[in-house]
Parts: sequence; structure tokens; C-alpha cells
Amino acid sequence: MTRILLSPVTAVTCNDSFEIIENAAIQIEGNRIVYVGPAAGAPPFEADETSGGERFVALPGLVNTHTHAGMTLLRGYADDMALEPWLHEKIWPFESHLQAEDVYHGTLLAIIEMLRGGTTCFCDMYHFYERGVQAMIESGIRACPSAVLLGFLPEPQRRIANGIAFVREYNGAGDGRITPFLGPHSLYTCNRDHWAAMIAGARELGVPITTHAAETRREVADVTAQWGASPIQTLKNIGALEAPLLAAHCVYVNEADMEIMGSTPFRVAHNPTSNLKLASGFAPVPQFLQRNITTGVATDSTASNNKLDIWQEMRFAALLHKATTGDPTAVSAQQALLMATREGAKCLGLEADIGTLEAGKKADVILVDFNKPHLTPHHNVISHLVYAVNSSDVDTVLVDGRVLLRGGAFTQLDVNKICADADACAHRLVAVSG
Amino acid sequence: MTRILLSPVTAVTCNDSFEIIENAAIQIEGNRIVYVGPAAGAPPFEADETSGGERFVALPGLVNTHTHAGMTLLRGYADDMALEPWLHEKIWPFESHLQAEDVYHGTLLAIIEMLRGGTTCFCDMYHFYERGVQAMIESGIRACPSAVLLGFLPEPQRRIANGIAFVREYNGAGDGRITPFLGPHSLYTCNRDHWAAMIAGARELGVPITTHAAETRREVADVTAQWGASPIQTLKNIGALEAPLLAAHCVYVNEADMEIMGSTPFRVAHNPTSNLKLASGFAPVPQFLQRNITTGVATDSTASNNKLDIWQEMRFAALLHKATTGDPTAVSAQQALLMATREGAKCLGLEADIGTLEAGKKADVILVDFNKPHLTPHHNVISHLVYAVNSSDVDTVLVDGRVLLRGGAFTQLDVNKICADADACAHRLVAVSG
Repeated sequence: MTRILLSPVTAVTCNDSFEIIENAAIQIEGNRIVYVGPAAGAPPFEADETSGGERFVALPGLVNTHTHAGMTLLRGYADDMALEPWLHEKIWPFESHLQAEDVYHGTLLAIIEMLRGGTTCFCDMYHFYERGVQAMIESGIRACPSAVLLGFLPEPQRRIANGIAFVREYNGAGDGRITPFLGPHSLYTCNRDHWAAMIAGARELGVPITTHAAETRREVADVTAQWGASPIQTLKNIGALEAPLLAAHCVYVNEADMEIMGSTPFRVAHNPTSNLKLASGFAPVPQFLQRNITTGVATDSTASNNKLDIWQEMRFAALLHKATTGDPTAVSAQQALLMATREGAKCLGLEADIGTLEAGKKADVILVDFNKPHLTPHHNVISHLVYAVNSSDVDTVLVDGRVLLRGGAFTQLDVNKICADADACAHRLVAVSG
Repeated sequence: MTRILLSPVTAVTCNDSFEIIENAAIQIEGNRIVYVGPAAGAPPFEADETSGGERFVALPGLVNTHTHAGMTLLRGYADDMALEPWLHEKIWPFESHLQAEDVYHGTLLAIIEMLRGGTTCFCDMYHFYERGVQAMIESGIRACPSAVLLGFLPEPQRRIANGIAFVREYNGAGDGRITPFLGPHSLYTCNRDHWAAMIAGARELGVPITTHAAETRREVADVTAQWGASPIQTLKNIGALEAPLLAAHCVYVNEADMEIMGSTPFRVAHNPTSNLKLASGFAPVPQFLQRNITTGVATDSTASNNKLDIWQEMRFAALLHKATTGDPTAVSAQQALLMATREGAKCLGLEADIGTLEAGKKADVILVDFNKPHLTPHHNVISHLVYAVNSSDVDTVLVDGRVLLRGGAFTQLDVNKICADADACAHRLVAVSG
């Protein structure tokens, strides 16, 4: 069992007491943290490997609560377009040619981008999930994959059965790093039967559902016409909120919707960049926080972002809502940082294992190098983390006790090969998409 | 005269024909570009120094149209506060202890952050400008400094005379890299006499004015009460728009204001992050672009941002207005990139010399390394530049034909010393500010 010592570091615990511990030590045995606290008071520890230095700030690994990793092959393929031509002329034709190997390579590309920036866990929803999950397992990242269910595709019952079988097969895979979800795409792409089957499956397996909800005004109108109630109310009406459900977006929700969100195991994946780029709007995050609705941050896919950078989402989460509310105290830096760590872990139901730096948690830990001009002077660690850090400032990344990035370089993954393979897939797809 | 060849690169010209030239060569003699075009068709050129490679995208250096560089010592000192306590309890007490040496070190810190991210020219407005300008001259960056005039400070007439003398003394300093402006802070901090003196000075010297205008609803109400018209209308009424004027923010402007902005030599410095962080709001940038109002992007100071990262401002400029208008085609990637280059140069009246990659322009050129996971696959250069590039992807920076950054490292400036000096100043100021 490998024993790793991170010391000296400034440890930002992100737990309920939210401590900032200078000259801290983090002791790791195998895949668990066994001590977080002042280096001076640390128990004896014989480390196989030691990292650290005064310049490093240690954080729990960041959590990306909603993406479609395989779509990373579409980064920059289509931007600045209205939704209908974007989908019909660009995204869907491209995706119609996707093969399982494309999703494998696209998912690996997404993973190296996320790991490079300190994201150690993500929730995914896509096609060819059996190959996507292989990329997750091989890379060493932690993930919650789901088989996306689009009810209008052929043989929905077979797809539902496959999605449920996928959960059974992969739950706990990758030494426990893989926690599959069920992924009905939305209320406007899945009907009552599909949802009923998914809810029953989730209950039987004890896994959460992840979906999209209330992303656009049009969706709210369509769902209301089709189901007779708002998306959130409908999710309640059909029994989807009796167990944990993680909904991406939640831009257009009213008071009654938020009452439901606050009184059920409802979790929100807030996608600020995607909501801007697709012109969806601004989710009422300050109200979510006031109501103690569990809210994480997310990138959505690179087709609507185009980055998988949780630092940017954290920063947007802290900045945007100040302007929409006219209140410069709305969504503090600390709240934004928690959305990317502890609250993100809660969104995935993984709060017992990740999301904070505490003894007993799994060792998903990142070190951020503060010895940079844009992180000078050193007034306030939390402010810098939210308002100034770049993904490239991440120096070291551990997932499940394994060092995947050290000194900004991958220890095991072959970045050049992953990029070249993904680029080749993307260009083949462009060629066949016309 | 040093002769530098950048080849092969993908050159994004940012001129009116907006070419993307693959396998391009950029030839530089002394401080001027002498050729930009296909490497295959380039004239013979014996270079003293050659950089380039297929992975590099060449752009004109980015332009930051509004900041207060000396304030970089306040990065992270006070965030998430309402405006009044923020100013009265934190910013002003801190600034009241500022000395000239603090501004020198703070300005150097700002400059290394900007250069590291490919910003080669900035417009500055601050106190102790005589020391600030030394930092600009020594560092090799291009800049438009101004002596900020706050009319409520003692001896305004002396300050006005000093600001005008500063322009005379430093116009063309640093081998032509320094182009001072006159800097009346705003209509709510300077009275009619101050403005009259500034306008007369600008006319006599033939230099532009830079100021703040229409940043907040309260300012518009106050200025309207005090001057009898909106800020923009007032600037016209007092004759400030008969010659070039660069106004930061312009968040709250009406149709009549925009008529004026479109029919006078009015230029806008759009500060998206600062307008979010201070809860000011969203400037109507799509309308500025429709009306051909010259608009650049800007960081404002680190006290309200907290970064000096034009990539972030470019990205926010492209993203924010899609959501405010509900139109995903609002502010395209190309428009945002132009705001940070060609249009930024126009904001500063420097379009004859900088802002595009063209023969005859001064050699302010940057190379961005596209061999990164987050810039893979390679569908669209412009999309990546605006939606995906980080400041740390900038590999090489030339200003006025001198290589200031190569391989991401400074060739001449001592980053560690600059950061340490700035940190020491900041901590002394915190100690005396209580």
C-alpha cells in the first residue's frame, strides 16, 4: 500500500468547518486520506513519496457534475449558431456517424483535459457508454457514466434494458471509481413509459437518475403542453424525485418548482458557460443557495462551452449572478468553491467518499501552484482560487491515491497519442458528415 | 537591426480581410513587420532568429483598453462586498497609503501578467503615473498611461497641469511605445472646470481622453441630476466628443446615447468581468457592434476582476451577450477576437501601428501553442482562440520587434523578483491600512 505525504501545503478543506490550514500535512495510505492538519501536529508517517512546498495550495479534486465527454470531438465544430440549424445541420449529422471507437477516443481527450485542470470526478451521459467507460477505467479518473436514453431512437425498450444492464455491470468498476447512473435525456425526449422504466430501474438498483431539465423557455413550454405541468413539477408527479435526481441546467424554474427542489432529493448541475453560449439564460443560483438546494457546477459538453474547465465554471458561478441580481455579495467565492467540491460530490451522492479534504475520504487531491504573477500578491487564498486561478496552475493531481499528474505532466497517460487519436477521429467524422 | 522570422505559423491577420493563412511566414525587421503571407511566396529573408512550428497560431498582440495597473497590489484584498463598504473600508484606506514605489512594483506585476498572456498594449489610468510609466518603459510593453484626475483631491489645478506636463514629457518615450492620454476619472468626480481644462489640454496636445462613463445606474442618476443630461449626452454637451474619447464601461446607455456614440469619435472599453463582479450589469455590446461603435475589451483593475487576462474578457464578450439577448449568434467569435486586437488598437488611436498582422505594422506579435488537449481537435482556429485558449497557451510574445517571452518564459524580466517586490509592497500596505 503506497503511502504519500503532501507537505508542506496550504490545505483548503472544503468541509463544513471550511478550514484553511497553512503548513499543513496530508497523509495518504492506499486510496484514503488518513490525516489532514497542521504538519507540526501530524502523527508519524513514513512516506514512500512526498510532494509539496510553500507555493502549493491543496484542494479536494474538482467535480464536474454534467458533461458529454464523447462530444469532445466536436470542440469548435459549430459555434455562434441558432439552436435548430446548429443541431440539424451540424451536431446531429456529425453524431450520426459516431462509432464506439470515436467515443472511446473522445472520452479520453475529455479526461486528459479535465485531469490537467484538477477535475477528478465527472458525471457523464452519452452514447457508446460501454467504450466511454473503458476510457474512464483506464485513465484512472473517477466518473459517474450513464447511457443516455433518447426515446425517439429505435428500440427504446432495448436501450432501457441496456442502460440498466450497464449500471449492474459497471457499478464499482475501476477499483470503485465508477458509479453509473441512469440517464433519461429529458422529459421532451422520453415519454411516460420510458420514464417509468427508468424510475423503476433506479429504485431497484439504488442509483441516481441524471437528466436535463428546464434548460430553455421553449422546453418549459413544450413540457408543460405535453405533460400538463412544469418540468420540475412533472418530475415530481411521475415519482422521479422520491430518490436522488441530478438535473442539468434548471434555468427556468419558478417559486413552486424551487419549493419542490428544496424538499426532495433534487440536485442541480449548474452549467453557466453552456447556458450563455446557447443563449439559454441565467439559472437563479442565488435562490438555489438560499433554499439549500444542492448545486454543483458543470461544463456541459465542449460543443456548447467549449472547455471542460471547472475553474471557469466556478468563476462564472461567482460572477454572473452578481450582475443578474445587482448584488455584489451574491454567490461568494467560498460558495462557488464549495459548488465545485463538496456540493458537487453531494450532487453525485459521493459525499461520503470525496469532495472534502478529511481523514477517511478517498484521496482525490490536487495541488495548485500559487507561485505565479496572476496569483500575486497573497492576500486571500479563496479569492485567488475562484477569481484568478487557471487550469494550467494545477501542478499535481491524485485520484484514489494514485498520482496522475505531477509538475503539470501526466505520469501515465500519453497525451500526444490521445490528442492525435482524437484528432484523427474528428477529421474522419467531418469528412463523412459532409 | 534585428531580423526575426516567424515560420511556419498559422497567421490570423485580424485586418479587414481577416485572413487565416496556414504555413505562413512573418518577417520582421527592427520594430516593423515587413511581410505576412504564405511561406511559399515569401521574399528572401536572412533571419537572425527564427521561431515557429505547425503548432503555433500567430496573432497581433492583444490590447487591454482599460486598467489601473498599480492596483494589482490589491488583487484578492476585498471581494464580494457591496460598493460602499468595499470602497470606504477596504480600497480607499489601502490606496491612501500608496507610495510611488508601490505603483512602480504593482505596475510591473500587472505587466508581467499581461505579457505572459499575450497582451502587448494597455491603456492605464492611475496615481503616481511618473513611476508607473517607468515600469512600462523598462518592461518593453506598449502602453497608453494617464494621470487620473479625481477632482475632489486637493489642488486639482496643479494635478491637471501635472497630467498635461506628463503627456508632453512622455509622448513617444520608450522608443515610441508610450502614448500618454489625459485621464479625467469621470463626470461625477470632476467638475465643469476640470473637464474644460482637460478638453483644452487634449485639443492642444492632440491626444485622446480616457474616462469612465455610464458604469452604474446610480452614476447615470447622479450625473443626470448634477449635469442635466445623461453621461454620454453630457460628454457631448461639454465638447468632450469633438476629439477622440475612450470611455470605460458604458453599461447604461440609451438609444440617444448610442446615436451620439455612433456619430462622434467615441470609443468604448468593454469590461465584462468587472461589470459582473461589481454587479454593474451588462453593456449592450451587440448594439454597439450593429452601430459600428468602436469597441475594445478590457480587464479593469484586479480589484474588480481579479485577472488581467484578455482571453477571459474576449470569451466573456462573446458569451454574455448571447444570454442577455437570447440570440446565440450575438457577438461572434470573430467579432470578439477583433475587439481584442484591431478594434482595441482603434480605441487607443494606434490602428496605424498595431492591432493587425500586416506589413508596415509594428511588430507586436504573439504565438499561441495549439498543441494542447483543450485545443484538440483542430476544427476551427478562431473558435479555439475565443472559446478555449488559456493565457498560459501563449508561447512567444514580441513587442516592437523585441522578443519578451519565448517558450512561455520571460527573456529579460525577472518574474520572481517582480512578484516578491510586489508581494512585499502589498503586505506593507495591508499592515498600515489596518
